Amino acid sequence: MAQNIKQLQHAPIGVFDSGVGGLTVAREIMRQMPNEKIVYFGDTARLPYGSKSKDTITRYSRQIVRFLETQDVKAIVVACNTASAYALDSLEKEIQMPIIGVVKPGAKVAAEVTQNGKIGVIGTEGTIGSQIYTEYIHNINPDARVIGKACPLFCPLVEEGLWQDPVTDEIASRYLTELIDIGIDTLILGCTHYPLIRSTVGRIMGDKVTLVNPAYETAIELKRLLAEHDLLNPQAPALGDNKYKFYVSDGADKFKTFANSIIKYGILSAKTINIEEY
Amino acid sequence: MAQNIKQLQHAPIGVFDSGVGGLTVAREIMRQMPNEKIVYFGDTARLPYGSKSKDTITRYSRQIVRFLETQDVKAIVVACNTASAYALDSLEKEIQMPIIGVVKPGAKVAAEVTQNGKIGVIGTEGTIGSQIYTEYIHNINPDARVIGKACPLFCPLVEEGLWQDPVTDEIASRYLTELIDIGIDTLILGCTHYPLIRSTVGRIMGDKVTLVNPAYETAIELKRLLAEHDLLNPQAPALGDNKYKFYVSDGADKFKTFANSIIKYGILSAKTINIEEY
Repeated sequence: MAQNIKQLQHAPIGVFDSGVGGLTVAREIMRQMPNEKIVYFGDTARLPYGSKSKDTITRYSRQIVRFLETQDVKAIVVACNTASAYALDSLEKEIQMPIIGVVKPGAKVAAEVTQNGKIGVIGTEGTIGSQIYTEYIHNINPDARVIGKACPLFCPLVEEGLWQDPVTDEIASRYLTELIDIGIDTLILGCTHYPLIRSTVGRIMGDKVTLVNPAYETAIELKRLLAEHDLLNPQAPALGDNKYKFYVSDGADKFKTFANSIIKYGILSAKTINIEEY
Repeated sequence: MAQNIKQLQHAPIGVFDSGVGGLTVAREIMRQMPNEKIVYFGDTARLPYGSKSKDTITRYSRQIVRFLETQDVKAIVVACNTASAYALDSLEKEIQMPIIGVVKPGAKVAAEVTQNGKIGVIGTEGTIGSQIYTEYIHNINPDARVIGKACPLFCPLVEEGLWQDPVTDEIASRYLTELIDIGIDTLILGCTHYPLIRSTVGRIMGDKVTLVNPAYETAIELKRLLAEHDLLNPQAPALGDNKYKFYVSDGADKFKTFANSIIKYGILSAKTINIEEY
């Protein structure tokens, strides 16, 4: 058993998302746990997830978990808010290894940092419609008022590269007005794409609103969880060992280009697999 | 055989798209061929198609054709420019019944109506990258200059309902400036979503530019093709017969709401199927 644990410590962490957004989570794991290997999967053939149903997203997530299991991962991070909202509960019951999503860590911090008890959440239609942030926040702070706002155009704008652009400003102003009027003091960036337009959102919300990035909190929580299971890798992988592996269900080259604009570690290659076969 | 043909004449036409966009084509078929039954499939679990690869779109289209075959359709309309661009060539070789896409009818009309030989095409990354409009136009008019422009934000803006909005104006101005500067006199709306923002595009391009809507041309071409194969339905379906059937791979209720804003015939129901099983 001790031997098994030792071997497992060297196993990679599986991280998945509908596409590139989860790279903001992978990036935090790389920063905070430089010893860890990562197998990343982006479901680029079926993205986006945010506008699709719970049944569909759960089925997709199950297929991805089956793929990651073939990669002998020691833990799984659901690096997509929509999949965390819809599928994590089911997945937790179905697999043996540690698995975490991005919602709970983000909700926890928001519930702790708010001063006036008014917390905003922005995310996809799926994440907001599920009310999952509200549920987790109320578990910690039953008196908090949680206001969700779906922002369906943010992902296409980010993917089109308009991270700093008057159009993104205009759309963000429309989405955020209601949250400003209500006087929230904490805003959860409830979609993994949103950290990429953090400066736009921050400027519109103003200095007094704390922005919570679940990617950051998730990496901290993952570290705690791995330590609890004695699964932290005690040493960095050998040089020449392929530390980070990237798989997608479509368009590996396009993924690689976008990924290299987010992650500074240099993504050498991404491989396409047919996820429907898992 | 005569009996078979007679039976076939009463069979429905299969129409498919990545989602709701193809309804602009279905709508034209309904207008121009009121006797015809339609089975529509929207691949809402895997949309959009425009940013995905040829291999993936071809695999998806094959699955959909297999589904439509189970519905005993007499002909198939690929009511999606990206699928027409990427998959139609393969599909034509693989099935026995008449099948048409939206690209060739649109290209034909554009090649015929241009006066100055400068034709613009707007569409998804996939459609524009494939250069298929250029190819078809050059088959008819080898001297035409065809300028393609991918407009990836148009679909999300249409799906967000911003058909008439300053943001859509601003994005459209950016996309179309190049085509105005070149002095095109004909513009193909090379994505089935675009007829829904036709007035915005028309205002920006000005009166002297002819907008070509392949949906309209495709319905005309379909009618010709069905007549050629003696497959036109000689009489309207009986009252109470379910004339139009709608299937999607996800989110039937959401589809129905959007569909009813496009089609005035009243979509009574839409049914969800798992397209990955075909």
